[in-house]
Amino acid sequence: MNMADDALFEFLHMEIVAHVYKEQATREDIDKERVTCVSTLEGMGFRVGQGLIERLTKDCPTFKDDLDIMKFLCKDFWSTIFKKQIDNLRTNHQGTYVLQDNKFALLTQLSSGKQYLEEAPKYLAFSCGLIRGGLSNLGLESVVTAEVSLMPSCKFQVVIQKL
Amino acid sequence: MNMADDALFEFLHMEIVAHVYKEQATREDIDKERVTCVSTLEGMGFRVGQGLIERLTKDCPTFKDDLDIMKFLCKDFWSTIFKKQIDNLRTNHQGTYVLQDNKFALLTQLSSGKQYLEEAPKYLAFSCGLIRGGLSNLGLESVVTAEVSLMPSCKFQVVIQKL
Repeated sequence: MNMADDALFEFLHMEIVAHVYKEQATREDIDKERVTCVSTLEGMGFRVGQGLIERLTKDCPTFKDDLDIMKFLCKDFWSTIFKKQIDNLRTNHQGTYVLQDNKFALLTQLSSGKQYLEEAPKYLAFSCGLIRGGLSNLGLESVVTAEVSLMPSCKFQVVIQKL
Repeated sequence: MNMADDALFEFLHMEIVAHVYKEQATREDIDKERVTCVSTLEGMGFRVGQGLIERLTKDCPTFKDDLDIMKFLCKDFWSTIFKKQIDNLRTNHQGTYVLQDNKFALLTQLSSGKQYLEEAPKYLAFSCGLIRGGLSNLGLESVVTAEVSLMPSCKFQVVIQKL
């Protein structure tokens, strides 16, 4: 049953990506296409992330620092969405964090050939938004980027914006 | 944790509906707007339903008749998506089925005032597609419609198309 539970989110995510890209393809300004799609998907992830973390932290004690928040995000938040924790969290202790997921759910359906590496970014935008939205709701503004080196492993880099 | 699990799908669904409608609003042909949005959402649900039921029935025995398939859809399929079963299944034994969900997850976030009844159809299209896609993958072509009388209760009518 669990496998189908995860599948719901994965299938739905694939539909969103396909729809957003298809919709753009019918518009005129092809040059801006890629940027717009990524930002649309990132925005959707942002709002879903905000809503989710609000529910998750409703009965939570307050966090003692930024690292504490990041750990919560890597464990509870990530597990709720992807049914596994982030495998590795690193920080330079100056506001930059690298979150590594060795088997990222939204990439496992793509083949691992080299040609698919180019396709990968469009499947990461929504999740970058999820992280940014979650952090934002806990009072941390950030810039989140992602990179894939060896499929289906994925690294998210979070840079906290000090006000 | 469960509450946040369900929330992921609900938030994501809200995002999809909002996005599809917003996108249409920027186009020219306003008259066709409503029809196109409903059919876009229905199509997304159809493909998600197909994928899900394929996973769910991978290790299942074959079904003995249409009613058997409908029961599976009301129990296993519905629970996987909405974390509850269909509350009531009726049939005229001539290919028409009425599935009633007394607390339909995708309507619980809407207020229950009368003005929201008009808004309800756009939150039902995806789920009509889910049912049609699931049945299609099990060899049953159907027409699926939905109606809300008292929020958040919802009835789905399935008419099997005999070839």
